[in-house]
Amino acid sequence: MQILITGAAGMLGRKLTKRLVEMGFLRGETIRQIDLVDIAESPVIAPICSSHVADLTRPGVADDLLTPVPDVIFHLAGVVSGEAEADFDKGMAVNLDGTRALFDALRLAHGSPRVVFTSSIAVFGAPFPDPIPDDFHLTPLTSYGTQKMISEALLADYSRRDFFDGVGIRLPTISVRPGLPNAAASGFFSGIIREPLAGVQAPLPVSREVRHSHASPPTAIEYMVHAAELDSSLLGTRPNLTMPGVSVTVGEQIEALERVVGPDAVALIVEAGDPVVAEIVAGWPQRFDARRALDLGFTPDESYDAIIRAYLEDDTP
Amino acid sequence: MQILITGAAGMLGRKLTKRLVEMGFLRGETIRQIDLVDIAESPVIAPICSSHVADLTRPGVADDLLTPVPDVIFHLAGVVSGEAEADFDKGMAVNLDGTRALFDALRLAHGSPRVVFTSSIAVFGAPFPDPIPDDFHLTPLTSYGTQKMISEALLADYSRRDFFDGVGIRLPTISVRPGLPNAAASGFFSGIIREPLAGVQAPLPVSREVRHSHASPPTAIEYMVHAAELDSSLLGTRPNLTMPGVSVTVGEQIEALERVVGPDAVALIVEAGDPVVAEIVAGWPQRFDARRALDLGFTPDESYDAIIRAYLEDDTP
Repeated sequence: MQILITGAAGMLGRKLTKRLVEMGFLRGETIRQIDLVDIAESPVIAPICSSHVADLTRPGVADDLLTPVPDVIFHLAGVVSGEAEADFDKGMAVNLDGTRALFDALRLAHGSPRVVFTSSIAVFGAPFPDPIPDDFHLTPLTSYGTQKMISEALLADYSRRDFFDGVGIRLPTISVRPGLPNAAASGFFSGIIREPLAGVQAPLPVSREVRHSHASPPTAIEYMVHAAELDSSLLGTRPNLTMPGVSVTVGEQIEALERVVGPDAVALIVEAGDPVVAEIVAGWPQRFDARRALDLGFTPDESYDAIIRAYLEDDTP
Repeated sequence: MQILITGAAGMLGRKLTKRLVEMGFLRGETIRQIDLVDIAESPVIAPICSSHVADLTRPGVADDLLTPVPDVIFHLAGVVSGEAEADFDKGMAVNLDGTRALFDALRLAHGSPRVVFTSSIAVFGAPFPDPIPDDFHLTPLTSYGTQKMISEALLADYSRRDFFDGVGIRLPTISVRPGLPNAAASGFFSGIIREPLAGVQAPLPVSREVRHSHASPPTAIEYMVHAAELDSSLLGTRPNLTMPGVSVTVGEQIEALERVVGPDAVALIVEAGDPVVAEIVAGWPQRFDARRALDLGFTPDESYDAIIRAYLEDDTP
């Protein structure tokens, strides 16, 4: 079993690498090699890992990575939503052309590896029914969402034509995201938990009634592993799946924080209404009926309390 | 008013050109020039028309066509479904990369022209609800449908970013298509009308219970003209529209033929079951609830009888 991970140096890439090393096997076979690809060096945490600094948008790079063709590819590489919106050319080059370069290299190589592609609920755009069913159309409101949607369409067609064996998983917002606050409009969903747990004040830019769908990092990793292992014949010609999430309001997130660690943390959340953030967030999906993924065995976090506990266990210093 | 038509030498391109010349104006302005672009010479039917033999997939070609930027662009160019399935590279190059080259040239040019893009109901793939609502997801079962879906996604994002002012229209199957029989799996929908009207036998490869959605060529042209003229602010961030069609069974098509021209024509339709064609057709959409387009003033043919009469008036030798 040889595995390739793109975007391996990112937060999810590192956690996926760690999980695979711990598992030791995938699809019933011993993992002998994990190639970690990113534009920066990836941490080499075990002898079976090797780091490759490579840019998929450059000609020939994808072909080099596929000699020999891995058994399973986790394609996580991409620039994030805010960057793809601010720098249109870069978003198209990395998120669309980079993905297509990888898919085309696979098409021209021998073998039919499982390709797990991490898409995003950014493929959806308001207005929505509540909950959003699996057969709701994709009308993204960002270039990032558009690039993910197009990558999904390519994955479906390339899989239908047996160029490879693809599974696309639309991840909910990942929270609690470890690390420093960032400028993403969604950043506060993690910030209002992470900062108080570190004894730091956290601004809340939206109303407590705002509803959103979450998955913890370990659950997102389990989604990827399950997508690598599942019988793709069960997907028919629709290999792109909305992942289940924990749908809660901001108020319910805060109540969960109080239940898990008490009122002192909650006191550090400071109302700081931001109409710009509020408007962006209003265009995002709130709740999914992710029936197909649930039926296929993708299991969400139990509650937002469980999401906070996962962060405390895995990521607090 | 300066107009550019790509795919101008095709059946719909020629009919659109003729209609625009007859109208003499578009969006309230006198049409002063119609540039006809195709990989073959387009018929120059009026002094305001000029033919340009050009291949949008070649570097720089799109930029040359946009000097100056036209007021309205009808982007019809593309390879058909069967060819895009048989020659994957050609379909991707023409239907995806050619469209993206045009869109990117527009992005980098000055001006914000109306772009009317002819998509197809091939963006849908079975299984379906009946009827298919406007918010049903796109899961194409052909590379052609995938390329149209991706072009729609680009059109929506480029329009959202004000690179141009796009409207995508998903045309139903065009019938009665004039000319010779072709190898397309959908060819019989026109063939069972066109051939008997010419006194020639026509094979019927599927059951009379098969249901499908149709628009006549003149109605498809009116859809394009209406898409050029409508107030695109009414589309919000969802500029791609399923066009209404006349949904009839093959049996109802044949009854209409008998009503319009009598039983002699019907006697020329010969049952010739073809399981391959039947299986392909089973994956196609049958009936749409195209509410958005209807509300926006797109008006379908009155009946399949009207579709046959349109063919008799416009296209019979």
